[in-house]
Amino acid sequence: MGLATEVHRTAKHPVVVARNEHRPDRPTVLIYGHYDVQPEDPVEEWTRPPFQPEIVDGRIYARGATDNKGQIFAHICGVEETLRETGELPVNLTFLIEGEEEIGSPNLAPFLVAHRELLKCDVVAVSDTGMVAPGVPTMTYGTRGVAALEVMVDGPASDLHSGIFGGAVANPIAVLTRLMASLHDENGRVAVEGFYEEVAPLQDWEREEWAALPVTDEDWLRNTGSPAVFGEAGFSTVERVWARPTLELNGIGGGFQGVGTKTVLPRRAFAKITCRLVPDQQAEAVLEKVERHLRQHCPDSVRMKVERGHSGAAYLMDPRSEFGLAAQRALATTFGKKAALTREGGTLPILEAFREILGVDTLLLGLALPDCHAHAPDENFPVENFEAGIRLNRALLAELGGVGRQGETETRRRGE
Amino acid sequence: MGLATEVHRTAKHPVVVARNEHRPDRPTVLIYGHYDVQPEDPVEEWTRPPFQPEIVDGRIYARGATDNKGQIFAHICGVEETLRETGELPVNLTFLIEGEEEIGSPNLAPFLVAHRELLKCDVVAVSDTGMVAPGVPTMTYGTRGVAALEVMVDGPASDLHSGIFGGAVANPIAVLTRLMASLHDENGRVAVEGFYEEVAPLQDWEREEWAALPVTDEDWLRNTGSPAVFGEAGFSTVERVWARPTLELNGIGGGFQGVGTKTVLPRRAFAKITCRLVPDQQAEAVLEKVERHLRQHCPDSVRMKVERGHSGAAYLMDPRSEFGLAAQRALATTFGKKAALTREGGTLPILEAFREILGVDTLLLGLALPDCHAHAPDENFPVENFEAGIRLNRALLAELGGVGRQGETETRRRGE
Repeated sequence: MGLATEVHRTAKHPVVVARNEHRPDRPTVLIYGHYDVQPEDPVEEWTRPPFQPEIVDGRIYARGATDNKGQIFAHICGVEETLRETGELPVNLTFLIEGEEEIGSPNLAPFLVAHRELLKCDVVAVSDTGMVAPGVPTMTYGTRGVAALEVMVDGPASDLHSGIFGGAVANPIAVLTRLMASLHDENGRVAVEGFYEEVAPLQDWEREEWAALPVTDEDWLRNTGSPAVFGEAGFSTVERVWARPTLELNGIGGGFQGVGTKTVLPRRAFAKITCRLVPDQQAEAVLEKVERHLRQHCPDSVRMKVERGHSGAAYLMDPRSEFGLAAQRALATTFGKKAALTREGGTLPILEAFREILGVDTLLLGLALPDCHAHAPDENFPVENFEAGIRLNRALLAELGGVGRQGETETRRRGE
Repeated sequence: MGLATEVHRTAKHPVVVARNEHRPDRPTVLIYGHYDVQPEDPVEEWTRPPFQPEIVDGRIYARGATDNKGQIFAHICGVEETLRETGELPVNLTFLIEGEEEIGSPNLAPFLVAHRELLKCDVVAVSDTGMVAPGVPTMTYGTRGVAALEVMVDGPASDLHSGIFGGAVANPIAVLTRLMASLHDENGRVAVEGFYEEVAPLQDWEREEWAALPVTDEDWLRNTGSPAVFGEAGFSTVERVWARPTLELNGIGGGFQGVGTKTVLPRRAFAKITCRLVPDQQAEAVLEKVERHLRQHCPDSVRMKVERGHSGAAYLMDPRSEFGLAAQRALATTFGKKAALTREGGTLPILEAFREILGVDTLLLGLALPDCHAHAPDENFPVENFEAGIRLNRALLAELGGVGRQGETETRRRGE
């Protein structure tokens, strides 16, 4: 399609970089995406094979359809169309597409450091977040961070007969469930000492903007299928998801997993935990607090092991910046209405890397809908969002290309 | 070997019956065993294939080596030896070997009812329990019962992204762990209302006899590999295991089970529970109490389903009965020392069936050791216990054959 393309090896999965000719007289935009996906597990809950894309009722079903192959492909198609029609782009463009986003992008930061010149830019644009509602253009100006750990509780040296030994020694599942239950109070607030200490409070304008968004608890119920919304008292559901930290149990296991009964007192049980972090929480400090809580609450009747996993920082940018306003204009042009300003419950650890290594903000212009089932069985992406993504790419590059020439005027106008 | 053998179909697995000629002038003894075994799961923790028996350091390693193929086979070998040497047995003998003991013997009671005449006897003998210590002959006069249930907690309709949705809805694993943690207090006592209501207290002679047994907490630690003994306050470890009820978590599962992290808010979690019951608890009443507790403690933020599983009654006989004393003499003869009187933490629901349908007591003359790993990986059976079982069978049939002729005298002598 007319871009110069390079595949760069990393310690794990390669990074793809594609660029047009970069000239000093126009802004440089880096469009980031990722080609890796979450495991298809539990594969038996998919209604079709996860790696054979199929369009049903206007949606493309496949693992990665939304997160992130479908969205990054829309940008590629937009650039291809523009180049085919005009032979030129309004900006210096760099595509950066990696393969380790779902495991916290461990090799991306070193790659950015090593290729700082190649990747030099004025702003990053990413479509890997969501629209607040179908048809509502959305700019996300913050994300939550993540911090993972796993807890293993070991009791007996091997599985025991629960009749012959039951009552004599602690059951690792029972100990683990007590430990896990101690992590929240009954109202869903995290009960780890100091967990909320560094949390930056929500701004008034955010609470007002979010309260006016076309998203209700009924939407959350419909999109999740849960019987009720549930979370920290004193916050609305969007506030809980976008601006409050969580401690989520992602997996638990131990003892007999088959059908029916096995009268076993198991030797081990485990739980997998991830915390979602918000500004200004630090991942290591939060993990330290959770681990200390677990050690304080674990009885001597078992042995406990805690393993820390990956982590990524929360992110926040100013949506009234020049590039932020340009992106909102592009969204408004593409969808014919004012862009909603939101944060996002998920984590994009790369945002902190772009800011720290390349020194730039990232525009999050997501096209996913809440019922796209990212990370879950039957992941899908609406064809109309895919086509909107192509149009958005064209409007966005046009608007960003104008920043510095007309951006100032525009900023003043919006600032009135 | 000279017995008349029949294989009887049942709704599931067949029952094998073998008999010598039954004559009215001698007692009739039914020897019961089972040929079914527990699942080999988790098979990866076996150090050798579970279904290829191998003798290592004087122990036979295989699934069923102890529970129950090895023990019932010792009885068969004892009878075979006697018949080969003398052509005759001192009793009317019936072998009854079934294939559903590990799932609660659902078809045995109907079989006993249907074949009451064929199986008519004066006493039952079973080797499916344990010796209290190596070389210590043991007669078990009571067992615990069992009552199983499974809890399923459903939240969202499908697995959700824990970033996009975390904080909005209840996490089924978190709810399940709170529910499970509510079932015990922090000292290991079952916290279900009324759980201990029907429990018959221990007799003074039992506490004294058990306190004098050659079994210490160090033995329990060595046999389990646990870092500590743990259980209900106010009771010794053997009292906790033999005469106090438990609520044990046999399995728990939900969410991501693989290596590493998956940032999922899972749709479902489950736990498998069995209670061990003691006289005079009734299984259905206990399950009713546990289920009521769960329903009272389950929040509206999830849907909960409770499924009841198999159950079996606890059992208690009088060890000073005629047949009880005869069995203790046989044990003393075989091992050269007085038999220990114990109860057993496991469950043999067939004992209640023998009592109710055939109207007889059961002599529990087990040969398993605490480190035989019944129900667990690397199940094994000492060759010397196997050989002792053969000798025990001969002494037992001789002693039981004398009951009614010399039993009265013997009873008076012991009763002094």
